[in-house]
Amino acid sequence: KKQILHSPHLNVIYTEYKLEAVWPLPQTFISSSEQYRLNPQTFYFGYGMQSAAQPGCTVLDSAFKRYFSLIFLDLTSGSVDKPFSVEISVDRDDCDGYPSEDSSEKYNLTVSAGRASLNAQTVWGALRGLESFSQLVYQDDFGSYFVNKTEIEDFPRFQFRAILLDTSRHYLPVQTILKTLDAMAYSKFNVFHWHIVDDPSFPYQSRTFPDLSAKGAFHPMTHIYTQSDVRRVISHGRLRGIRILPEFDSPGHTKSWGKGQSDLLTPCYNGGIPSGTFVSSVFPDSYIHLGGDEVDFTCWRSNPDVRAFMQAMGFGGDFTKLEAFYMENIMNITSALNKTSIVWQDVFDYHERIPKDTVLHIWKGVPAKIKEELSRITKAGMRVLLAAPWYINHISYGQDWRNYYTVQPQNFSGTEEQKKLVIGGEVCMWGEYVDATNLMPRLWPRASAAAERLWSDEQQTSNVDKAFPRLQEFRCKLLRRGIQAEPLYVGHCKHEYQGI
Amino acid sequence: KKQILHSPHLNVIYTEYKLEAVWPLPQTFISSSEQYRLNPQTFYFGYGMQSAAQPGCTVLDSAFKRYFSLIFLDLTSGSVDKPFSVEISVDRDDCDGYPSEDSSEKYNLTVSAGRASLNAQTVWGALRGLESFSQLVYQDDFGSYFVNKTEIEDFPRFQFRAILLDTSRHYLPVQTILKTLDAMAYSKFNVFHWHIVDDPSFPYQSRTFPDLSAKGAFHPMTHIYTQSDVRRVISHGRLRGIRILPEFDSPGHTKSWGKGQSDLLTPCYNGGIPSGTFVSSVFPDSYIHLGGDEVDFTCWRSNPDVRAFMQAMGFGGDFTKLEAFYMENIMNITSALNKTSIVWQDVFDYHERIPKDTVLHIWKGVPAKIKEELSRITKAGMRVLLAAPWYINHISYGQDWRNYYTVQPQNFSGTEEQKKLVIGGEVCMWGEYVDATNLMPRLWPRASAAAERLWSDEQQTSNVDKAFPRLQEFRCKLLRRGIQAEPLYVGHCKHEYQGI
Repeated sequence: KKQILHSPHLNVIYTEYKLEAVWPLPQTFISSSEQYRLNPQTFYFGYGMQSAAQPGCTVLDSAFKRYFSLIFLDLTSGSVDKPFSVEISVDRDDCDGYPSEDSSEKYNLTVSAGRASLNAQTVWGALRGLESFSQLVYQDDFGSYFVNKTEIEDFPRFQFRAILLDTSRHYLPVQTILKTLDAMAYSKFNVFHWHIVDDPSFPYQSRTFPDLSAKGAFHPMTHIYTQSDVRRVISHGRLRGIRILPEFDSPGHTKSWGKGQSDLLTPCYNGGIPSGTFVSSVFPDSYIHLGGDEVDFTCWRSNPDVRAFMQAMGFGGDFTKLEAFYMENIMNITSALNKTSIVWQDVFDYHERIPKDTVLHIWKGVPAKIKEELSRITKAGMRVLLAAPWYINHISYGQDWRNYYTVQPQNFSGTEEQKKLVIGGEVCMWGEYVDATNLMPRLWPRASAAAERLWSDEQQTSNVDKAFPRLQEFRCKLLRRGIQAEPLYVGHCKHEYQGI
Repeated sequence: KKQILHSPHLNVIYTEYKLEAVWPLPQTFISSSEQYRLNPQTFYFGYGMQSAAQPGCTVLDSAFKRYFSLIFLDLTSGSVDKPFSVEISVDRDDCDGYPSEDSSEKYNLTVSAGRASLNAQTVWGALRGLESFSQLVYQDDFGSYFVNKTEIEDFPRFQFRAILLDTSRHYLPVQTILKTLDAMAYSKFNVFHWHIVDDPSFPYQSRTFPDLSAKGAFHPMTHIYTQSDVRRVISHGRLRGIRILPEFDSPGHTKSWGKGQSDLLTPCYNGGIPSGTFVSSVFPDSYIHLGGDEVDFTCWRSNPDVRAFMQAMGFGGDFTKLEAFYMENIMNITSALNKTSIVWQDVFDYHERIPKDTVLHIWKGVPAKIKEELSRITKAGMRVLLAAPWYINHISYGQDWRNYYTVQPQNFSGTEEQKKLVIGGEVCMWGEYVDATNLMPRLWPRASAAAERLWSDEQQTSNVDKAFPRLQEFRCKLLRRGIQAEPLYVGHCKHEYQGI
């Protein structure tokens, strides 16, 4: 079934049908050389008779429109062929909801003569199947479209497959975020971790505390996210099955907060910090990221009010106790709002009383240290999310995507139960050196390497050299769809980037 | 005169007037806080009475149009102010020529109330002065334009300030090359080294040997440079004072040549190699780059015909003699065509009979080794061109522009005469991992760091921390002009990139 199509140092124009043309690789994939010709004039997406979702389903109606355009980029009208219809059926009418941690993304896709049928439990699974179907379609040298007889059964290995963008170190225009969500769907990512504020700037325009952005953004009018911008991002993500996970990182990384709330940062810990409540009604996802990383105690230590409070609380000189007190309070507020907290791994070290459903976000350490942490934290029964191996803002020369591909998230010492506590992984694009000028080529297709690791079966995708031509082909598909994905090595694509 | 405007870790919106607002820094620069308001409705470029060039001068007429648009990006019409005119005078009417190694780029610019006068020996110098003038203009928060009283005397430290693009490992659309020429002019680069063909592909469509691209390009119709494309690049460069230096690298790096000329590569050295003659009429520059690097002798060694020729010539088993024979022949052909050869440094090691005007191109070695080579080659009286420290395709995380800025091209052991043999430097963007998707943000503003090193006085620009805020400001200017220049660090610009 596997086949290396060419050596890593040659390049081939992809006009012929390829085995395993879907990235990330489906769990089971059987295809044949039997091919069916498609014609935009006689091609239809439709709902199955038994489908719980029917016309009017916002998620799927708009997905049909979108994928029709993606498949038939140039609307060549050749001879009118036999009609071909793709029939989608889902078990639940969750058309107006939001994707969540419990959403099944499983789907089955069967492509045969004249028709394809796509079955899923949820509309979110149907979206994943539509993406796979769209990747199966190819054009010959004369522009005709084809799809081959195919049988796919597919589901993600991990429930949580995220990309982090940092809109505090540089502001990213809303259009750039929306384009990133588009590209995320092409690689089957399902969580956008929006690191929306941090020390350098506070672009989030809060209804309750408008001064935070008025004074803390790089520019109070042009470099902010209005409530309407945020709604647009949430809606754009929803239609693609992508959860929007906001992060309001505290008590460290809050310099920019202080500009708009003058009494917020001086006492360092209890100045009416507007976390939790002021965002829970805006972001529908049941998760919220509370940060908790890299707290510098020197500020607290310097403040006599803080030291007096420490005495009163019986913390002595142990500032980790103060941080624990702060984080516990904020996690309790979050629990009370029926939200699940994600916090950076730092928080685990100081806290015995973390709510049991909290997710620890692993962001630091060399590989050996990461394994140790995974072992230690899952042993305590806590769920973990792995980001450390995928800090792709750290660029280096050459094919560094190979490092992102060969990560083994469950390769640490622990029981099967512990392994299951790894809920997924996250690709982080921190913003020190990244803004709208270089985000897209830096993110794609390097993030897609991690996407396959998080979606596909590890055994079937253990060979990075076999992945190389598939990823090259996928990168050409991204270019064809207008995603400014950078090259993996010497070569070319049929549809090159025409941006400039 | 020098002033650090802010610390490297803070960012400031640049609306106020800055000292030393010109990048690369002019040789002498005196400015005052006296400011004059400019208005697009009463602003004029014109020729001085005594100027050798007058209306009809192609180079300057089009430069006036271009710089008017660059200066007055948003044509706000405020109250009509006093008129302001910039009077350009040049000593020679070289309006229809091409810039060459002998072209003076010296200019003097005086900005005073109601008028500026720009004097230069050549139109190429006038172009450099127009660029400086355009960088002096700034806008206040209300959109009004200003320029301050200024006195500049300026000339380049090095005559040869190049950027190399590699269009063989990836094809670059003509538009991308033209945009690069635009940006080069903003940093006062004056040579575009077009590494047009190499092993992976042969995109140059030759009139004499059309099969070279028909069979050697990635695609024979879409991934080629027609004669008209090449003329467009040459003309676009000319209007910006940029020389187009083509490279046809042989005898190594010619795999792609063999596809279109079947008897070319087998005998490895004398199969009617179409170098020299077939390009000299197309490219007007008096220099041509002949390559000569990384010759692998294993192919030659394997060929009995080659070995027989070696015997006949009395070379024994020394293949360096064969390479010397080849390169000497090709350099002699080039001389006969009245062209100056540039060759990669490899050639120096094997050749005693290099034409004395040949330029050796230093591309390899660690810093200590580079100094040694500079010393050794200039001691032999040969001119050198420094590229090794500026291989900016080798990306790394962080502010690597600092390394490009702190290069000292003349810091090697040798006499003053030897130092003068360093004709300049070149920023190389090799194409293994670069195409139109990521070229612009990878090139700018990192290349601009080298630009200042090659143009400005070394003493005055020895402090990289002082350069940082100036380069940040220059990068914002590039963004404002539509160049997709990546950020240097955390922060923002007034005009962000709006590409996506």
